[in-house]
Amino acid sequence: MGLLDYFRSSRPKGSASVAKERLQILVAHDRAARGRPSYLPRLQQEILEVIRKYVEVDMNAVSVKYEQEASHEVLELNIILPDTAQGRA
Amino acid sequence: MGLLDYFRSSRPKGSASVAKERLQILVAHDRAARGRPSYLPRLQQEILEVIRKYVEVDMNAVSVKYEQEASHEVLELNIILPDTAQGRA
Repeated sequence: MGLLDYFRSSRPKGSASVAKERLQILVAHDRAARGRPSYLPRLQQEILEVIRKYVEVDMNAVSVKYEQEASHEVLELNIILPDTAQGRA
Repeated sequence: MGLLDYFRSSRPKGSASVAKERLQILVAHDRAARGRPSYLPRLQQEILEVIRKYVEVDMNAVSVKYEQEASHEVLELNIILPDTAQGRA
């Protein structure tokens, strides 16, 4: 399955098919050294700060999902951008 | 299909099952306003810079994939981290 298919299948489905500006970020980490503490939570904050250079982000419109296994962790950020979003750069 | 399943299925398969430290980043953008130029290429550079605060990244070990449709674009970064990678922070 291609990337576009994955993201297409993961879009929220609803009766309203209004075109929404939306940004989705996944960070997956295969950890060879299991004991080390994860830096993904801090990475998440910094990635959000980078994104805010380009678009307005309402922190209430950000949803975060984090899954962890022994040697694998995935962080997912879903951001609904405001309809009036203008690129900042 | 869950996120972990997706990343598991997208891992390279080979006879060598050496545990590699690996980071994979996907950025998907649903664009309501189609005319506007994409900021994903610049975002990619900045995300890489953020990641380099936490781990050593050999730029030769980074592969980038970019797919675009009319109102949707996906950026994928695959980074093989050095075996001796130590968290910097």
